[in-house]
Amino acid sequence: MSVLIICPGKDAKKWVEALKDLEPRINLSVYPEVQEPENINYAISWKHPRGIFKKYPNLRVIASMGAGVDHITSDPEIPENISITRIIDEQLCKDMSSFVLSLVMNKVRNISLHHSARSWEPLMYNQVEEEQIGIMGLGTLGEAVAIKLLANDFKVSGWSKSKKHIEGVQSYNGERGLSEFLKRTTLLVCLLPLTSETENILNKELFEQLPKGAYIINVARGEHLVEHDLLEMIDKKQLSGASLDVFRNEPLPQEHPFWKHPRINITPHIASVTDPKKVIGQIFENYKRMLENLPLKNLIELRKGY
Amino acid sequence: MSVLIICPGKDAKKWVEALKDLEPRINLSVYPEVQEPENINYAISWKHPRGIFKKYPNLRVIASMGAGVDHITSDPEIPENISITRIIDEQLCKDMSSFVLSLVMNKVRNISLHHSARSWEPLMYNQVEEEQIGIMGLGTLGEAVAIKLLANDFKVSGWSKSKKHIEGVQSYNGERGLSEFLKRTTLLVCLLPLTSETENILNKELFEQLPKGAYIINVARGEHLVEHDLLEMIDKKQLSGASLDVFRNEPLPQEHPFWKHPRINITPHIASVTDPKKVIGQIFENYKRMLENLPLKNLIELRKGY
Repeated sequence: MSVLIICPGKDAKKWVEALKDLEPRINLSVYPEVQEPENINYAISWKHPRGIFKKYPNLRVIASMGAGVDHITSDPEIPENISITRIIDEQLCKDMSSFVLSLVMNKVRNISLHHSARSWEPLMYNQVEEEQIGIMGLGTLGEAVAIKLLANDFKVSGWSKSKKHIEGVQSYNGERGLSEFLKRTTLLVCLLPLTSETENILNKELFEQLPKGAYIINVARGEHLVEHDLLEMIDKKQLSGASLDVFRNEPLPQEHPFWKHPRINITPHIASVTDPKKVIGQIFENYKRMLENLPLKNLIELRKGY
Repeated sequence: MSVLIICPGKDAKKWVEALKDLEPRINLSVYPEVQEPENINYAISWKHPRGIFKKYPNLRVIASMGAGVDHITSDPEIPENISITRIIDEQLCKDMSSFVLSLVMNKVRNISLHHSARSWEPLMYNQVEEEQIGIMGLGTLGEAVAIKLLANDFKVSGWSKSKKHIEGVQSYNGERGLSEFLKRTTLLVCLLPLTSETENILNKELFEQLPKGAYIINVARGEHLVEHDLLEMIDKKQLSGASLDVFRNEPLPQEHPFWKHPRINITPHIASVTDPKKVIGQIFENYKRMLENLPLKNLIELRKGY
C-alpha cells in the first residue's frame, strides 16, 4: 500500500510535509521516483503526464490537489474503474468569492480603466443594483460567489446543467434556459467545470445573445473561452471588456494580444491558491476510507467530468 | 424672497430644472445674473467665489449642493449668523461605500497592480479577515462604509473626534485614541470632514505610526494629505501604496508625479456624483422650513466645520 504524489512543475515538498505531519509512517513516493509501481494504490495529483497512470496497475483513487479535475478527466487513458476525487475547500470558496467580488467592483466602478487611462476623465458608472450578474456554473464555488454578490446588493441569476435552487438567485438550466439567462445578463461570470460540453462555450454565438456592452469575467478555465471571438466582440463593442484569470496557455505568453488590450484586465491565475496544509485532511480521510472500503467523499463522475 | 444658485464652473441647469420641477413659481436667480441682491435669502452653493455672500445682506441660509461643506466654511467672510446645511443622500452613502469596497478589494487582491505590471508574477495576498481597516471619520459616510466592510468579513475600527458607537466597530477618539487606532490599522480609509484640525492630518508623523506596509485610501479631500510625505513613505516602504480619489488641485495636473507612480492608484473624484433630482427635495424642504421659521435639517456648525 503506497501513496503517490504526482505534480510535475509544481513543488511537491509542501504536500509531502503536510501528509507526513498527519501520518509520519505513511508509505509515500513522489513522481518520478517510484520504486514499486505495483504498490501504488492512491495518487495525489495535479497535471500528471498523459497516460502515466497505466503504470500503476493497482491504483484505485486519484485525488486532485484542487477543486478542478479536468487535468485528470481529460486524459483518455484513465481506466473507468479508478475513482477520482476533488477538493472542497472553504477557503477556496472564500477566496474565489472575494476575488470575483473584487473583479466585479473593479468593473462597476471602472478602477482599472481609470488607473490605466492616467487622465482626468470621469467615466459613467452604473449603480450596483442596475447590474444583472449572470453566473455560469452553480456548483459549490458558483453558489458561494452568488451569495457574496447578493449580499452586496447585486441582482444575480445563474445557469447550470441541472436546475439549482439558491435563495435570491433566478436559476436557469439546460440549452433552452441559456438564451433567457444570457439576454438579461450585463456581467457574466464563468465558473463552469471544464468538460467536452463546456469547452469553447464562451464564444461569439453566446456573446451575441448578451445585451450590448456586457462584460465577461472568466475565473474557470482558459479552454472555456474562444479568445479570438472575445477580441472581435470587444472590437465591435458588443462587449465592453473582460477580466480574465485563466488562459489556454499559462503563463500567458508575453506576446499575447490580451496583455496590451486596454479593455482586458489580466490576473495571473490568482483566484485561489490552495494551501496543502488546509486541504490535506480531506485527502487523507479519503485515503483511510479507501483502505476501509468506505464510500469516498467529494467523488466526481468520470463520464460527466465533474 | 428669492433663491440663489451659485456654482461657478459647474452646470447650474440641472439644479434649476430640479427645483422648478418641485416649485414652478419659485423666484430663482443663477449667479452671476442677480437683479436684486437684497431679495436673496437662500443660496444653493458649490465652491462660491470667496467673499461673495457679503453682497446679499438678507441671506439666511447657504445649502451645500453636496455632503461636503468645507467649500463654504473655509471662506472667512461668511457671517456667523448664516445657517449652513449639507446634503445627506442615501445614494451618496451607497455610492461611497461601494466605491470604498471596490478600492479595498482592488488593494487586497492586487487587481490594479497585476493589471499595470503586465507580467505573469502572482503576488501574495492577505485573506480578507487578516486586514484591519481603520476608518478616520465616523459620520454618516464613515458609518456606511464601516457597515459595508464588516459585511464583507473585514475587521473594522474607526477614529473620530468624539466617541461613536457602531456595532462591530472598535471605536477610538481624540488625540489619545489616535496612536492606538493607527498602530493596528493595515488599511487606512480617510473620510474626515475638512477642517483646520484635519487639514494635513495624513502626514509623515501619522504614517509612521501605522504598521509597516500599511495602505492609504483617501476619499475625503485632497487637503487632508501631505503629498510629499506620502511619496516619501512609499519610497521608504513604510507604506505599500495608496488609492486617491481627491486632490489639492483638481483636475490633478498632467505633470503631477502621482500619475506615473506604480503604487498610487488614481481615480478622478468619482466616489459619488450627486444627482440634483435626488437631493433637491431636502434642499427645498429646508427652504420651506426657513420661510416658516422651523429648525433646519442637516445643519452644520460653522465653528466645528461639519
